[in-house]
Parts: sequence; C-alpha cells; structure tokens
Amino acid sequence: MFERIKAGITAVKGVRCYGIKEGRYGLGIVACKGKVAGVFTRNKFKAAPVMITRDHIRNGEIEGIIVNSGNANAFTGKEGLRNAKKMAELLAKSLNVPTKKIAVASTGVIGVQLNMNWIEEKLKEIYAKLGSSRTHALSFAKAIMTTDSFPKEYTIKIKDCTIAGVAKGAGMIAPNLATMLVFIFTDADFSPKELYRMLKKAVNVTFNATVVDGDTSTNDMVLLTATGEKRISRDLFEKGLINVCLNLAKMIARDGEGATKLLEVYVNGAKNNNDAFRAAKAIVSSLLVKTALFGNSPNWGRIIAVLGYSGIKINNSLDLSLKGFKSGKEIGSITLVKDGKPCGKEAEARKIMKKSDSIAFIVNLNIGNGKGHAIGCDLSYEYVRINSGYIT
Amino acid sequence: MFERIKAGITAVKGVRCYGIKEGRYGLGIVACKGKVAGVFTRNKFKAAPVMITRDHIRNGEIEGIIVNSGNANAFTGKEGLRNAKKMAELLAKSLNVPTKKIAVASTGVIGVQLNMNWIEEKLKEIYAKLGSSRTHALSFAKAIMTTDSFPKEYTIKIKDCTIAGVAKGAGMIAPNLATMLVFIFTDADFSPKELYRMLKKAVNVTFNATVVDGDTSTNDMVLLTATGEKRISRDLFEKGLINVCLNLAKMIARDGEGATKLLEVYVNGAKNNNDAFRAAKAIVSSLLVKTALFGNSPNWGRIIAVLGYSGIKINNSLDLSLKGFKSGKEIGSITLVKDGKPCGKEAEARKIMKKSDSIAFIVNLNIGNGKGHAIGCDLSYEYVRINSGYIT
Repeated sequence: MFERIKAGITAVKGVRCYGIKEGRYGLGIVACKGKVAGVFTRNKFKAAPVMITRDHIRNGEIEGIIVNSGNANAFTGKEGLRNAKKMAELLAKSLNVPTKKIAVASTGVIGVQLNMNWIEEKLKEIYAKLGSSRTHALSFAKAIMTTDSFPKEYTIKIKDCTIAGVAKGAGMIAPNLATMLVFIFTDADFSPKELYRMLKKAVNVTFNATVVDGDTSTNDMVLLTATGEKRISRDLFEKGLINVCLNLAKMIARDGEGATKLLEVYVNGAKNNNDAFRAAKAIVSSLLVKTALFGNSPNWGRIIAVLGYSGIKINNSLDLSLKGFKSGKEIGSITLVKDGKPCGKEAEARKIMKKSDSIAFIVNLNIGNGKGHAIGCDLSYEYVRINSGYIT
Repeated sequence: MFERIKAGITAVKGVRCYGIKEGRYGLGIVACKGKVAGVFTRNKFKAAPVMITRDHIRNGEIEGIIVNSGNANAFTGKEGLRNAKKMAELLAKSLNVPTKKIAVASTGVIGVQLNMNWIEEKLKEIYAKLGSSRTHALSFAKAIMTTDSFPKEYTIKIKDCTIAGVAKGAGMIAPNLATMLVFIFTDADFSPKELYRMLKKAVNVTFNATVVDGDTSTNDMVLLTATGEKRISRDLFEKGLINVCLNLAKMIARDGEGATKLLEVYVNGAKNNNDAFRAAKAIVSSLLVKTALFGNSPNWGRIIAVLGYSGIKINNSLDLSLKGFKSGKEIGSITLVKDGKPCGKEAEARKIMKKSDSIAFIVNLNIGNGKGHAIGCDLSYEYVRINSGYIT
C-alpha cells in the first residue's frame, strides 16, 4: 500500500530547510507554505514556543517553522514568551511573510532564557543556505536533536502522494507526548480541520502509545503541514499518516536514552480496546519489565504482576508469548504461559532475547475482543548515566 | 511523645519467633496470641498466601504467622493454594491451635511452586528454637528478606505500651503496597475493627506514600497483632502506629534496590490534600527526578515538569526549596525557585546534595491549604543491575 523511500522532508515539493548544530545547541528552519494542524503537550506548564505556535496555527495556514535545541524556553515567564515570539518574527522577516504564519518549537533544558543573539546570528547563516536537497533535510533533522543518538526521518510514497516526517526525541517520552518534536509534511490536499482529525487519531495510536520513561515534557509538538498539490482519499492518507507516525515512534523508542532493545506489547482478548491499551501501556512502563528486558530475562511473572495492578479485567486463563526480531526479521517465538499455566520455556526464550534487537510480548487475556498495542524500550545503565549527569 | 527503643518484635510480651535463611530461601515463624487486622495488595492477581491469610484473619484472632522468602507462591493455581494452606496447617499443628488462626505470607519469585519438603523440614528446625530474645527477633527479620540489604525493625514505647514492627521490602515498592511484608505487634488492647481502622489510616499515609519503582506486587501484606494487655487512648496509639509505619516505610525506601539516597517530597499550598498527595507521589515516581537525585543534580526543571503533568491545579508563582540531611540531621537548605523565578542557586544545592544521605524537596504551590508528603529514593546503576539479573 505504501512504499518507504529513502528521503527526508524535502521529498515533499515546496519544502526547503536547513539547520546547524554547535555543541549542545542547534537551530533549524523550514520554509513550506501550506495548511497546518498541530497536537501539543498536555503538560500544564506549557513552554513559551508551545503557546506561541498554538496561537499562530489557529488560522490553519503556515509559511515556516523555526526550531532550536539545547534550551526548552520553558518556565521562562514573560521574557520567554517574548523570545519565542521574536524567533517567529525573525524567520517571518527573512521569509517576508506574516509572523502569525510561523511555528516555533524548542527542546532542551528548562528554566533558562534563550540566547537570542546566538539565534539571530545563526538564523542569518542558515537562512542563506535554505534548500531542498537530501542534505538539507538531514541537516534539519540533526539540528533539532538533543540526547538523540541518530536523526529520525521516515518518508513514504502512497499512490503519487508523499508523506515525510522528521522527529526528535529520546528521553522523557510518555503517553500524551513528551520532549518530542515531530514535523510531518505532505503534498496531499486537506483542510486544516481534516488534517487535525487525522493527526489526532494517528498520534493517539502511535506517539501516545510510546513510553520511554513516563515523564511528559513541557514542549511536545506534532505539526502536520500539507501543501495541497495532490488528491488522495482520506482513508488512504490516514493509513499512510499512521504508518509514518508509527515508524517515527518506534525510532524514538529504539533511541530511548540508553535503550538496547525495542519493546512492543500486544494485548488481545481484553474486555475492550480501552482495557487492552491500558494494560499494554502499563507493561511497557514497568521498570521491572524494562530492566528484565535489558537483562534478557523472560520474567513473565513481572508481566503478570503488571496486568494484576493495571486495573483491567483479568482472569487466570491468560496466554503469554514472546517473539524476537533482529533487523526487523522475526528470529524466534516462544509461548511462556498457556491457559494460565507456565510452560517452562524460559531457557529457550532467553536465547531468543539475547539475539534480538526488538522483542514483542503478546498477551491474550481470553476474555473479550479488545486489542491494544504499546511501544517502549529497555532500561539500562546508560539511561541512568545520561539522566543523572545530563545537566545541573 | 514516643521513644524509639533498640528492640525487635519480641519487645512485645508474648511474641516468640525464629527464622532461618539458606541461600536465596528463608523461613520465619511467629507465635503470638491476639486480635488481628490486615491490609493486603490491591493487585488483582493475589498470591495464594494473601488469599489464605485474608480468609484466616476474618474472625479477628490469630495465634501465629509463617513466612517464606525466595518464592512468592503467586500465579501458582490450585497447587499454590493447597501449599499456602499446608503452611498454615504445619504451623498450627506445631502450636496446637486451629489452622484458621495462622497467617501465611510469601515473597520472592512468581510462578514457581513451593518446595514443601524444604518448608516442612525447616519448620521443625526453627520451631524447636522459638524464643523471645533480641536474637530471635533479628533472626525472623533476616529470614523474610529477599533483595533487602538490611533487616528492618522499628519499635517504640508510648506510655507503657509497646509497638514493634518488622518489615521486608526493597524493590517493587509502589503506592498501594508492593512486595512488602510488614508485621506489627503491640500489647495494646483494641478490637479487630478498631485495629483495622487505625492500620488502614496509618498505611495510607506511610506505605502507600512510598514509591521505589512503581510496580505493585501480588503478595503485599501488613498485619497488626494486639495482645491486649495494656490500655492506651486510640488517638495516642494511632500516632504511635503511624510513627512505626513511617519509619519502616523510610527504611524500605532507603533500601530501595540500589538506592543511595532517601527522597522526601512535601507539597504545600495545594488546592487540597488530594492534589498535594498526588503531586508528591508523581515527583517521587519520576525517573528523571530519581536519576537527577542519583547524580546530585538539583534539576528543579524536572520537578516543574512533573507538577505540570501530574494533573493537579498549578500556577506560575510556586516556590521550591531543597533540604539535605546526613544521618538524620539537617545539613543545609536552599531555595531554588521563589514565586516562579529561578534563584540561580544550583551550585550551592549540588554541594549540599553531595554531602547528604537524604534529600527533601519542599514545594509551595501558593494556591490553597492542601498538604501532601511522599517517600522515595534515587535510581542508580545498581537498580538496573539488580533487576536485570535478578532471575529468569
């Protein structure tokens, strides 16, 4: 149905961008005229750029995006708001468009004012280099990184339409978004309202099902910009959008700070989808499950314990199995619990886990037809190292 | 009001006990005739001993307790229930009392059947050694340990009444109890109903305010046994009981798997107590706060972010300060945020943190009169090591 192509956001006609990174700080800009929709963090302390962008995209049209990394411009009071606004003004002036048509995003440390001189100076540099090559897309993807260990891009062709996403996120990822910036571009033609409905739905089943450490950031933002050149059915576009979001979410989980393994949990046979989703998220959030995964330990008792405290309807006749993947290919599958009884296959399961870079747990509660899916990663020494030393 | 005495559960007249530990496995017994009340895990997969004990203490009277460590006897089906019942029978036979007057508790690995031969054999050994010396109390405290690094006892004199508690717990501690076994004995005289009401209240503000990793176990149990020899006012006893529970809870948090620092969070000035408690628990649960604590980083931005996603009422004029303690003595205090503005005292705060074995964060939301308190610990490399390698 869709084909992944090796390209970044500049695969969408009309997208020009550039970005730079200097030490801990980065600045990236995108010029792209189109309809826009956004989904934002639910954290009550919303960073200044979140407030400005929510306001700016209200009329559903956009001309450009400016993003800085290294400083979240969060909990920075009125000065922070002025600075976020100023960032929009600076790009608007360069592009010769209204300030209200610029989105602003920030990621990094909380409670420190932006260095506006640096931003103003660097903006001149990168504006001069705006372009639409593969290299341009990658420079933007790299500029918005913080603790990310690799740039995150995912682009698909769906009929003759293109959907291209770039994301930033590694730690602090939780349901309801978290230090996660995602910018998606498409040449499809939809109204801002339609874009919003589809984006909201896609975010719910992908980014909001992803847990790295359960902390929700002050700065999260997912923007979808559509240039409107191509026609495509809503149904098809929605599927494509979910696919792009899902793959970006998996990249974020795989790049969870210190993560060595991707974790996917499928809960089937629940009373309803809500129960299933709740259980799946509780399992990927459990520190004991996450550390067991790091240690290649098929400790299904911990999963049972999570199911027990997750608040969902359960009984004693559940099934639990494990699948291991290496580079996207399934390399083994083991049933650990069948009809509530342990199968004694821990040794085999451990062997599969050791060889895998991605593990899926499949739970069947054998109660109803509810299905849910969640994405996470293991918890390693490296997570502790990164987050205990990150910054004072 | 109360005086801590260096003594274990045998400080309460009528309590005899003993316990042994062999490698990963332990067995402990207590003989003590009295009224009893219990609070149990809310995990839906309740371990067999939890089900048996809930049933056995229904009539409010008890003669003895048998506890094994190393195996949780959880998710073990009908055989597990038979074995838990059998443990009660074995001790009942030795003590020559009805089986229904014996409480059973287990802690350890989930999903493995008990080795009943070992239990039967060891019970004979330890029953022969039942006694009421300091050494006897300590042998029981040690027998029930799993990943605990020290035995946990707390005993107070309050007027001429004694309250003595022993606890087991290190990982998997979460609100609503978790792999935590607590046995409290007193010579006070109360009905089972009164004991239950006071125990429930004490557990809510102490153990249920304690978070190590947020996972809730299948096996938790807090039992309170009263021999009825001494008269004391309800009010005074309740205060004493809370004191014993609070100190045991702090020991559990301090011994959180791999913990290097105790964390206490006080939230004041909230809309109501409920908001304050919710915020305090969210802060001690945050992986980012826990890892920052391990790294002696006064990263108050992470606390602000938690307040923002905790779902409570907030505004921008909050105060946040930090206190450091060493061996129970305050060694420094720093205001980090005042009326919503950073104070720039991170360097001083870091110095205090480095010297402290216990840190308190005090938040004033400046909204209302709600107060809440929660207890936790840092998250270290050692937590990951213990829980990634614990057992398959």
